Amino acid sequence: MSSVSATVIAPSFEGDFSPGEAFSLEAGGVLPSPTLHYAIYGRPNAAADNVIFVAHALSGSARVADWWPRLFSQEGLLDTDHNCVIGINLVGSCYGSTGPASIDPASINPASINPGTGDPYGPQFPLVSIRDNVRLQVRLLEELNIHRLKLVIGASIGGMQAIEWAIQFPQRVERVVSIGAAPLQAMGLGLNHLQRQMIQLDPAWKGGRYLPGQPPRQGLALARALAVCTYKSAELFEHRFARKPDRGGEDPWASFHEQGQGLSGPRFDIAGYLDYQGERFVERFDANAYLAITRMMDTFDPARGYASAEAAFRRIEAEVMLVGISSDWLFPAAQIAEMAASMLQAGVRCDHRELISSHGHDAFLAEPDELARLIRPFCLQ
Amino acid sequence: MSSVSATVIAPSFEGDFSPGEAFSLEAGGVLPSPTLHYAIYGRPNAAADNVIFVAHALSGSARVADWWPRLFSQEGLLDTDHNCVIGINLVGSCYGSTGPASIDPASINPASINPGTGDPYGPQFPLVSIRDNVRLQVRLLEELNIHRLKLVIGASIGGMQAIEWAIQFPQRVERVVSIGAAPLQAMGLGLNHLQRQMIQLDPAWKGGRYLPGQPPRQGLALARALAVCTYKSAELFEHRFARKPDRGGEDPWASFHEQGQGLSGPRFDIAGYLDYQGERFVERFDANAYLAITRMMDTFDPARGYASAEAAFRRIEAEVMLVGISSDWLFPAAQIAEMAASMLQAGVRCDHRELISSHGHDAFLAEPDELARLIRPFCLQ
Repeated sequence: MSSVSATVIAPSFEGDFSPGEAFSLEAGGVLPSPTLHYAIYGRPNAAADNVIFVAHALSGSARVADWWPRLFSQEGLLDTDHNCVIGINLVGSCYGSTGPASIDPASINPASINPGTGDPYGPQFPLVSIRDNVRLQVRLLEELNIHRLKLVIGASIGGMQAIEWAIQFPQRVERVVSIGAAPLQAMGLGLNHLQRQMIQLDPAWKGGRYLPGQPPRQGLALARALAVCTYKSAELFEHRFARKPDRGGEDPWASFHEQGQGLSGPRFDIAGYLDYQGERFVERFDANAYLAITRMMDTFDPARGYASAEAAFRRIEAEVMLVGISSDWLFPAAQIAEMAASMLQAGVRCDHRELISSHGHDAFLAEPDELARLIRPFCLQ
Repeated sequence: MSSVSATVIAPSFEGDFSPGEAFSLEAGGVLPSPTLHYAIYGRPNAAADNVIFVAHALSGSARVADWWPRLFSQEGLLDTDHNCVIGINLVGSCYGSTGPASIDPASINPASINPGTGDPYGPQFPLVSIRDNVRLQVRLLEELNIHRLKLVIGASIGGMQAIEWAIQFPQRVERVVSIGAAPLQAMGLGLNHLQRQMIQLDPAWKGGRYLPGQPPRQGLALARALAVCTYKSAELFEHRFARKPDRGGEDPWASFHEQGQGLSGPRFDIAGYLDYQGERFVERFDANAYLAITRMMDTFDPARGYASAEAAFRRIEAEVMLVGISSDWLFPAAQIAEMAASMLQAGVRCDHRELISSHGHDAFLAEPDELARLIRPFCLQ
């Protein structure tokens, strides 16, 4: 561990971008006027060849330094003395870019007594894909006069964006690092589906038309708690919690009604932890955005529209590094290794590494120093 | 595959037993008058030394041949030409034994205008443990003049009962086979907790006071769907479903509202499968019983009340076979192997086998022939 101060790193600029015209989506819908919220750390140099795009994961934001601070303190990674780092909030999210909580322009009735107002998209928000986001990200960077990226890096949904950048815009990116990302397999698709149903089961969801301040808290918390199980590993949970009773003093052997908790009963420590993770998440995330982004995650498939994944990979000109995480059961390391083999087969200059960690999928957040050690040589080439 | 007719094997007798007095529970509650529903296949011989108790898993019943039919067609296992097979429904379940849907004697008011009626236990049903069930099972067998069992066999919660039989009543059992059973680890405890919360999130649960015919269908279906994920393996799901769209013709790429399904959206095939498994389960299981039995499963811990698991195992006189399932992630094979090592250390004549299967925890139901092949030599000794 190097000694790094815990000072929050602030962006040098935060802004919003809109292409100023309707945007047609891969799945068939249209966003009449999408907005991208972005954050910039450091500055582009004169040649604008020092720009790194960091693509965020499901619940992240454009403010990269808020969720990946230690990569900023690593020379040769996101150090802003040498690099300009840009983060862009996903369309479909709830941190500044257009999402289900944004006003649906179609709902604005100019003849109404409040002609300027309208309703949020809510359940009418269309399916937005990873590729849609990448295409919009390119438009934003064009606007900023950034025509080529030194590096696109991301993990999970961020890694999906990185891969689509390499495939869809081969001329525009020099180097790509994708961590713990691949098309979801059946188990992951199933668990995402169940998470969406938990939100919808909450009567407060109201078919997606809940009011601000009255979100489906319990459903979203429960979905997050299940997601946390998929982001961590059984090994880590066993090490941390094993069969300990809840640290708040509950006795798992008490009869249900004795502690007034209904039949769910007094908890083991792991249950208290999952509940806490769920409750915290509700304070910072929107339920409909969660539905939208998990579907974005589900539909990621680089082969879509090509004869095969390999055919898609043949388009890649960037140097690619794929990182699997040894204990990741949402995106198994073996699947990442297969994708790397397929890229090599397709002629991609693809480097493959495995992050050995018990932290599961979340290792990209939980083990930033180990991750940095693994990817630095590639990023510094 | 041998050729076996699909004829349903009927019990030679089904009945109910009550000890006729209040029963004090391990966790501290009392059941004033518990009933055990049981089924017998074949007949005890004159010495009553041919009796096999088959302990059922979470959603099973006393009617063993309904859920484990192929073990009845295997000579040397449950063939009723030579053996008398008995199944006993768990207290806490909903197939005839006392459970949350039974009338709570405390709710019967003799002064009411309907003196004979009362309310179901519902959320007042006390915590009943594996050991409580085993103690009651011994009482029932005493009543039937069966003082010693040739074999206790079970998988999952059934395997937990088998282990407690060996520890608590060492004189009463000759041989024990426990399949895919061990104290739940943190991941399993967490996922059971989330399943209970799904049921409770359903407004139809009504604090456990739902009316017959108006159960929390969606919550219970969702809990079962998650349980199915824990009972199967990622490998099996990937082989069967991969990223295929729902076989009913839904397009995972359709926008949510296009098919009128809310934001959860059109499904992948795995999602359709999980939904179907959930819906089927609701037709045959009670939500409060699900809460009660998952807590019974959570609290299983052979070491409880002893200095260690090994100290508990030292009581065992039976020959034991522990079977792990290679792809089981609810009760990992490595954990079963450790328990076997601990039994050996404690001086138990313990045999350990691993069922190699991609079917996950469910392999004990999905691969009966393979299982039979593995355990027959031990059972025939």
